[in-house]
Amino acid sequence: KMPIPAAKKAFSKLVNSQGQFEVPVVFVTNAGNCLRQTKAAQLSHILGVQVTDQVIMSHSPLRMFKKYHNKCVLVSGQGPVLEIAKNLGFNNVISIDMLRESFPLLDMVDHNRRPKLPVRYLTNLQLIVDILLTNGNLSSVHQTQKMPHLPLLACNMDLMWMAEANSPRFGHGTFLVCLENIYKKITGKELKYEALMGKPSELTYRFAEYLIRCQAMEREGNNPITSLYAIGDNLMTDIYGANLYNRYLEERIARTNPKAVAKIAAATGTATTVPEVDEADNMWESEFALPSATSCKSILVCTGVYNPNAEVPTDANQCIKETVFHGHRDFRFDPALVEPGHIVNDVMDAVELIFEQEKFVPQ
Amino acid sequence: KMPIPAAKKAFSKLVNSQGQFEVPVVFVTNAGNCLRQTKAAQLSHILGVQVTDQVIMSHSPLRMFKKYHNKCVLVSGQGPVLEIAKNLGFNNVISIDMLRESFPLLDMVDHNRRPKLPVRYLTNLQLIVDILLTNGNLSSVHQTQKMPHLPLLACNMDLMWMAEANSPRFGHGTFLVCLENIYKKITGKELKYEALMGKPSELTYRFAEYLIRCQAMEREGNNPITSLYAIGDNLMTDIYGANLYNRYLEERIARTNPKAVAKIAAATGTATTVPEVDEADNMWESEFALPSATSCKSILVCTGVYNPNAEVPTDANQCIKETVFHGHRDFRFDPALVEPGHIVNDVMDAVELIFEQEKFVPQ
Repeated sequence: KMPIPAAKKAFSKLVNSQGQFEVPVVFVTNAGNCLRQTKAAQLSHILGVQVTDQVIMSHSPLRMFKKYHNKCVLVSGQGPVLEIAKNLGFNNVISIDMLRESFPLLDMVDHNRRPKLPVRYLTNLQLIVDILLTNGNLSSVHQTQKMPHLPLLACNMDLMWMAEANSPRFGHGTFLVCLENIYKKITGKELKYEALMGKPSELTYRFAEYLIRCQAMEREGNNPITSLYAIGDNLMTDIYGANLYNRYLEERIARTNPKAVAKIAAATGTATTVPEVDEADNMWESEFALPSATSCKSILVCTGVYNPNAEVPTDANQCIKETVFHGHRDFRFDPALVEPGHIVNDVMDAVELIFEQEKFVPQ
Repeated sequence: KMPIPAAKKAFSKLVNSQGQFEVPVVFVTNAGNCLRQTKAAQLSHILGVQVTDQVIMSHSPLRMFKKYHNKCVLVSGQGPVLEIAKNLGFNNVISIDMLRESFPLLDMVDHNRRPKLPVRYLTNLQLIVDILLTNGNLSSVHQTQKMPHLPLLACNMDLMWMAEANSPRFGHGTFLVCLENIYKKITGKELKYEALMGKPSELTYRFAEYLIRCQAMEREGNNPITSLYAIGDNLMTDIYGANLYNRYLEERIARTNPKAVAKIAAATGTATTVPEVDEADNMWESEFALPSATSCKSILVCTGVYNPNAEVPTDANQCIKETVFHGHRDFRFDPALVEPGHIVNDVMDAVELIFEQEKFVPQ
């Protein structure tokens, strides 16, 4: 709740005397248990600057999935899920609690028949699986799973997160582990996600670039943004995601620019195949036009999760984090993406570095 | 709650005019959310016969694990877990709720800091994993998992169970799926169970045989029981478990009787290797002496889960149950064990069949 001194300084550089941002800025969090507006208000209060449409929650990219906005959608999660969903554009939303009230027998979480207390985790898992196995018709019995099952969109893949305890607590990624493995055990088939969002997914960074582009359009001069910088304290989400998005941007260039293809091939020493335009690209382009960014550079700060002073284990096996991949099942881990473009002490240093790199002088 | 007519008739045959059982009988359920005495009282009321020490719950075989009775044990489950554990002989018991009160920061199930309502499933998963990863010391941080981790005993492996809904509800086996996969995701290692009990595990049937043997000893004549019969309505638990135990009994004989070895080899057309005496055997023998039973025959009734009139799917893929193995991860499925020794209409027919097979005439 208390900003570190560097944050205060950073934002005094980023914001002019009228309280306006010097450059387009977005705040990307994996939290998802409140409305974007709520988080924005918290940030505004903490940082002393007005942060309005600049906050991206784990669920924010759902705004782009307009094809589902008129469908009947089940929403499962923490916080005011119905309000969050409606705020994202969904206008036909069912919550887990609504299902439980309509189908009380499905919520038999124990042999005592009537749970004394709502049991959220199990209930959510059970009812989501019921929806999948009945193809959305809870009055019927479980069917052999026809593939594909109903579309599934997941926001936030963090296996664990740092709360105030000594050790990390289970995050939404743990819920996904349960859901995937229960589904596999019951049906023998793999659960398939229509979309996964939240850092380090590309979707989240694409959405961030879209908001940046919108901010740029509202400025005098309407200069298109080409260079993105992502500042974060978490190697496996913030840095990894920025680098992954950077790779996506480079591949887009390669798809359109033969010279760039040759350049990348020379740099990596490999032949570069031109990636096919994927479905998300098509949806994205029709909704939000093409990205203008051509790079996304990652900057790691040392004031948070990443601790440069942590003892380097002599035995690599000593550290779970370094040997066991905690990213989502669908992500193939690429160690090259863990490496930050820059490492600085704090966010103030990051802002100064960026201004220097871009030869940017605030008004 | 209402006995079927056949049940009434069966018990009028099994029980004499003084309300005593003609033959040793035990009732084996996979339920585990209440004390044995509670279930016995329910059964006594429903059946109209006194059922005292004859009920086996999923947790009942824990009584044999005396080596843990003086250890500090965490108990997680539904119902009065502390009372259940103490009733089984454990005298140093901690519940999940006790952990949550002592270590409130570990129960950060959501970013809102203070869960408005207890969230049992996630809390139990989180705290069990915390105990495993800190080797029982919650004040410390998660360590690289030294193997073996603390001993883990699981009671009830049912992936699903038939409640009153159209389709089965998640059982304790689903909790185990979550626990195993969360543990694997975090540590990269496989969770190992010290013991798994509940039908169809052998442990449960061994314990049933022990109770049967105790009942036999209290009767006039003290005739040792050699032939067990297991009556049930569920192929994958009742019948499978009885057949699995029967195989265990046959292998015991083979271990001690060369002629039996030859007979089994001839019958199965394979060489029979003499199985090593396993650790559970040693523990069992020291606590409860050797089984007297030499066979356990399974009898399937058609008045419950098994429905002989269900349409046989033309396409085997139509039926999840028939194609996807829902047994526990550690059980290698043997289709031969699904076949019941006999199929009868109801429990009355089962009792009559047994009396006929054994040429038994009630007093």
